[in-house]
Amino acid sequence: MHEPTADSLIGQPVDALPTPALVVESEALEHNLALLATYFASRPAKLRPHFKSHKCVTLARHQLEAGSAVGITCAKLAEAEALVAGGIRDVLIANQVVGPAKARRLAALNRSAAVRSAVDSLVNLAELGEAATAAGVTIGVLIEIDIGMHRCGVPPGEPVLALASRIRETPGLRLDGLQAYEGHLVTHPDPQERRAKVAKAMEPVQTTARLLQDAGFSCEIVSGGGTGTYDITGNLEPFTEIQAGSYALMDCSYKKVSPMFRNALFILATVISSHQHFVVADVGLKGMGNEFGLPVIAGAPRAKPRCIAEEHLPIDDLPASVGRKIRIIPSHGCTTCNLHRTMWVAHRDILVDFWPIEGSGALE
Amino acid sequence: MHEPTADSLIGQPVDALPTPALVVESEALEHNLALLATYFASRPAKLRPHFKSHKCVTLARHQLEAGSAVGITCAKLAEAEALVAGGIRDVLIANQVVGPAKARRLAALNRSAAVRSAVDSLVNLAELGEAATAAGVTIGVLIEIDIGMHRCGVPPGEPVLALASRIRETPGLRLDGLQAYEGHLVTHPDPQERRAKVAKAMEPVQTTARLLQDAGFSCEIVSGGGTGTYDITGNLEPFTEIQAGSYALMDCSYKKVSPMFRNALFILATVISSHQHFVVADVGLKGMGNEFGLPVIAGAPRAKPRCIAEEHLPIDDLPASVGRKIRIIPSHGCTTCNLHRTMWVAHRDILVDFWPIEGSGALE
Repeated sequence: MHEPTADSLIGQPVDALPTPALVVESEALEHNLALLATYFASRPAKLRPHFKSHKCVTLARHQLEAGSAVGITCAKLAEAEALVAGGIRDVLIANQVVGPAKARRLAALNRSAAVRSAVDSLVNLAELGEAATAAGVTIGVLIEIDIGMHRCGVPPGEPVLALASRIRETPGLRLDGLQAYEGHLVTHPDPQERRAKVAKAMEPVQTTARLLQDAGFSCEIVSGGGTGTYDITGNLEPFTEIQAGSYALMDCSYKKVSPMFRNALFILATVISSHQHFVVADVGLKGMGNEFGLPVIAGAPRAKPRCIAEEHLPIDDLPASVGRKIRIIPSHGCTTCNLHRTMWVAHRDILVDFWPIEGSGALE
Repeated sequence: MHEPTADSLIGQPVDALPTPALVVESEALEHNLALLATYFASRPAKLRPHFKSHKCVTLARHQLEAGSAVGITCAKLAEAEALVAGGIRDVLIANQVVGPAKARRLAALNRSAAVRSAVDSLVNLAELGEAATAAGVTIGVLIEIDIGMHRCGVPPGEPVLALASRIRETPGLRLDGLQAYEGHLVTHPDPQERRAKVAKAMEPVQTTARLLQDAGFSCEIVSGGGTGTYDITGNLEPFTEIQAGSYALMDCSYKKVSPMFRNALFILATVISSHQHFVVADVGLKGMGNEFGLPVIAGAPRAKPRCIAEEHLPIDDLPASVGRKIRIIPSHGCTTCNLHRTMWVAHRDILVDFWPIEGSGALE
């Protein structure tokens, strides 16, 4: 006897949800989607919203419907599989898809959709080419350039040209362009410095794109950018696509960097223990990301979460009795959504829908 | 075309798994289960292994079969529901189950199993009593005492007696004893100090248990302890049950505190990008807990993980080419298992089984 069932909660107040529950406020979400769609409507660069921030296929469809979007970005193969299964036909995996078995899965996706991948090594090119040829498809790839984050990607310039030449020689592969992600700069706190640092970091991408074109290589797509840099990278040559993700739902960290977007995501929690100077809510590390710090309690500016335990959030200076529902804005939406299976949708405090989070958890 | 399927991987080497994958080494697991079962075989206190550390019902059954265990501990109602659905009939929810709907779910569980709950407030007692009476069952409760962690629980002494009196007056409830968890001390680095601090912290539990008994209350169960204190709290009056969880799978943090247990858990990952001084593995915050720090790369003592990104682990000083499989021992097993849906079981590097992690994710 699990009660109440999900369907029976539609039309009920948000507070009727069993806790912890992940809730999206539809008006704030619509505001965020419209803001970015409008911004890119009149610009040459377009949006390719990042699935990793919410992992919900229904929300990805809303992002496409909002306009100015050419497709969806995602972080890994299993996310792309969820997107294609959900009817989305233009996907960029902004990451390396490594190993023969995964290469075959990627090739299989390209039978019914355009699913591109970032690449940065010869061994990976060989795997992808072999799988594509065996499946009778062509896989479009973007060469990833490391512009200072020092994660994946090759240095700009000659190493990119070398990979481009190999792609041209590899049956089953098609060079579609470049990826360069300024992940080390997207949340830089000072807006002026952020702008200057991003412009500087992207100079080698411009040079490399020219090198490629001069050598007769195609460079149709150049992908990068995030919620904190959409209005910087989105206006820089040669970028054609911006991979912003957090803008849709936001969190209390990104809100400081990009205040034009609204916090559309919260965790509904219940006070399960109440004491003289603190209370304890029923959500912790297993329902909330922690790597960007402590969350914020909506509507309670004096409340101070003390730490995030596994299943508890002790909160100082929040007078509340046992049973009270509270709304918690997490410090990182991406890792929070990854912990939940369902995203509840609320319109003015009434539950109107629930969306599966198909990509949640540690996908392979 | 998702290949290979889970069944087809049985009998294959561990490295055949799509990554990231959570893997348990069966010999190390058996060592850990046998060590603690043997320890408690000759002692008055017994084990009630904590489900929250792995969230896998099959592993919980192995813990019971290993012996010296009276049942399973878990952290929340949905975990208890998974355990009862999996045939486990004696469960302690070491936490408060708050709200009328959850109280009804707890009462429903008690129709076919003994599922006790911790309590620390009058409002919660009323909810549980009402639900139990309506369902025609009795719910056994343990009064939680705060012995210094300052999370849930009431202070020792009179506040416990007051709750005990209310439990006696509440139809549908039965006072079974006390819970006192020394979570702030279980990983104290110095073993001697840990022992002294735990003994001191538990003195008020002894006093309170005597007060209860003198007042004619039952105190059959006194529950507490963890992997770092099983040989301290497990030998203290009046404890009857030890809630250790991490001992089964371990992690690289707990290994420093409790070296008698073996690391039985690792994440199989693939090197997806290789550079002169570092490589990048394909698992990050979405597949690995981070709150206890960086993980360890098995068999590579010089390798230094630099940080944990969402889907990437950059590792300095690990010479490895793209495609190489590596084994990562996470810093916290509990939050790592919570991110995975399947636990692969390996015996001497060959896959022999896979167990669902029924309790993973943010459960309600």
